[in-house]
Amino acid sequence: MSVQNAEQQTVNSIAGLIEQANTKAIETMLTGDPVLVDVVPAVEAIPELASGNTILHAGPPIEWQRMCGPMRGAVAGIAVFEGWADNLDDAFKKAEAGEFNFQPNHHYRAVGPMTGMTTKSQPLMVVHNRTFDNYAYCAINEGLGKVMRFGGNDAGVLKRLAWLRDTLAPMMTDALAQCDGIGLKNLIARGLTMGDEMHQRNVACSGLLLRELAPLMALVSKDNASLSEALKFMGGNDQFFLNVGMATGKALMDPVRDIEHSTIVTAMCRNGTDFGIRVSGLGDQWFTAPVEMPEGLYFAGFTEADANPDMGNAEWSIPGMDYLGVPTGIDIRKVVEVGMTPTINTGIAHKEPGIGQVGAGVVRAPMKCFNDALRAFAMQEGVA
Amino acid sequence: MSVQNAEQQTVNSIAGLIEQANTKAIETMLTGDPVLVDVVPAVEAIPELASGNTILHAGPPIEWQRMCGPMRGAVAGIAVFEGWADNLDDAFKKAEAGEFNFQPNHHYRAVGPMTGMTTKSQPLMVVHNRTFDNYAYCAINEGLGKVMRFGGNDAGVLKRLAWLRDTLAPMMTDALAQCDGIGLKNLIARGLTMGDEMHQRNVACSGLLLRELAPLMALVSKDNASLSEALKFMGGNDQFFLNVGMATGKALMDPVRDIEHSTIVTAMCRNGTDFGIRVSGLGDQWFTAPVEMPEGLYFAGFTEADANPDMGNAEWSIPGMDYLGVPTGIDIRKVVEVGMTPTINTGIAHKEPGIGQVGAGVVRAPMKCFNDALRAFAMQEGVA
Repeated sequence: MSVQNAEQQTVNSIAGLIEQANTKAIETMLTGDPVLVDVVPAVEAIPELASGNTILHAGPPIEWQRMCGPMRGAVAGIAVFEGWADNLDDAFKKAEAGEFNFQPNHHYRAVGPMTGMTTKSQPLMVVHNRTFDNYAYCAINEGLGKVMRFGGNDAGVLKRLAWLRDTLAPMMTDALAQCDGIGLKNLIARGLTMGDEMHQRNVACSGLLLRELAPLMALVSKDNASLSEALKFMGGNDQFFLNVGMATGKALMDPVRDIEHSTIVTAMCRNGTDFGIRVSGLGDQWFTAPVEMPEGLYFAGFTEADANPDMGNAEWSIPGMDYLGVPTGIDIRKVVEVGMTPTINTGIAHKEPGIGQVGAGVVRAPMKCFNDALRAFAMQEGVA
Repeated sequence: MSVQNAEQQTVNSIAGLIEQANTKAIETMLTGDPVLVDVVPAVEAIPELASGNTILHAGPPIEWQRMCGPMRGAVAGIAVFEGWADNLDDAFKKAEAGEFNFQPNHHYRAVGPMTGMTTKSQPLMVVHNRTFDNYAYCAINEGLGKVMRFGGNDAGVLKRLAWLRDTLAPMMTDALAQCDGIGLKNLIARGLTMGDEMHQRNVACSGLLLRELAPLMALVSKDNASLSEALKFMGGNDQFFLNVGMATGKALMDPVRDIEHSTIVTAMCRNGTDFGIRVSGLGDQWFTAPVEMPEGLYFAGFTEADANPDMGNAEWSIPGMDYLGVPTGIDIRKVVEVGMTPTINTGIAHKEPGIGQVGAGVVRAPMKCFNDALRAFAMQEGVA
């Protein structure tokens, strides 16, 4: 056998292994059974949050010095919220002095929209993937505008976070204890037919979830003024389901990690500075590139000059394809082959800390992540 | 001037009057502002229900002898419900003996789906058209399957009606008293973009309405077990909004009645025997024809042989036209000219009394109604 033939045989045999691995990856995604089962203080779900002023953030790993404006704003706000700083100025100083331990949500089975702050006392919604018995976590959505996930950090933002923690979350916890969890697979299927796409448009799923939760919350309520306030908050927040959808994506994708020879992307996420992807067959490595600027429509009074480059997590994609199935699985080989990276629709944060959301738009994942990942994959498989 | 020219001039002048009248009719429809403002016992909304064992029904006027099976079943059930008969057999005997006073809902600013039973103690939802200060009424939707609107009349059906009257309705009354009404124009606009069509598919509007009502119901609830049950009923009934939508249609169309020279249809409705239309420029007259059989999909165990001809009310039409505006106004001239009557999607009742819904499908309005109406219109205008 010539050297050339031997090489070709190696390539063919690896192609077969990849095919098998990717089939397993897709089956793993499609057979997942995500169920909303609980709402718990973050430290219960993630014991590592108990100490060291640990702050989980959106996207791939990043240090304070490289964080964008809105993420710095969110960090300062959440530090005040957790009592690690007396005020925002103090929080900025402590961040500069290295007093906070920054880690990606993704390293702790968690996700979070935009800045994605997760700290010990925040309530996390728990999605259980019953097929593979893994759990994923996400905080409760705060609504639109001046909110922490877009870098908002004033007294109103912190007050809302406290209300989520002290009032809404315990009610959701008690409500979910009254049932065997709320199945999300069918609920999302129905929401998709009603026009939701699980990121900018969640009004249908938010309503469908409220239909399930409201009767249970009424059963456990001890104080109907709070119950009314909770139902009004959930009913008035078209994005309430976004964070449930994100935890669902995480719960579905985590079992797809670490399938040997698989080229399927298991996470795509951003932190406002870097965009990062992980690939099933490439373990815990992150492949990063600078995030791109979203093309968007801006709220009154704001323009592209105010916008921060894109950030957040996006693990579930929804096409406007008339009743065709949702495309499942992103293969780094195909991304590089066709030269087209996934499109992400997203909110837009003001680039300065403390201001919040100023628009919504569309952004592309940077090609560099996929090129680098494919090169690393080829090296690993010995075909570079 | 020749006789021919004079005739032509008359026709032209009448055409102009019709054009003006129809423009006013369409403007009246489009400028309506329907708001859900109250839920009241039917006798409060319609004092004529107080005496004479009066039963309002769907569609144009009809006497007991000509009523279809499911409408007879519903009549017997509602008579027991109101205490006018000891049991269903007794109710049938009393109906035969002429002891009930049958009137169309449409004669009393009311509407009702399928059999459309309206009697004194049932709760009616009240929709106020704020632009023209008129009110329209419809009972609360019972859900699917064995329900009175499809002719169901057993103990379970009557028990549900009693629960609607004694538990859900007072809670909705108290809830609506906490706000300035729930605006339906925008709510419906949003529901349409989420795939609702206001007859077979009301899941979006049902959810959107629950989002408004649930916080208010929590505020006024004195008993959270009942509140939970009420929220569960509303959240579990995808058709909850149907009856709100019908009252909305009635509230929007009643101000269109009695516009001189207008050829616009102001009501299309059926009672399982006759289909009837009313035309703006033709006053209170009904133009009727035998109803047609729906072409439908049947629930397990039922076939077309079980089906009753079509009945009910349908005053709001929703096309599957991708984001084009909803067609507004049915002109009897155009119906006759193009030879195509409106299509109605509808539930299908079992033809025997007492059984209920057995399917859902599509049916056409009969052409005879429109031919007769156009002939009457031409007579009235002196151009026949």
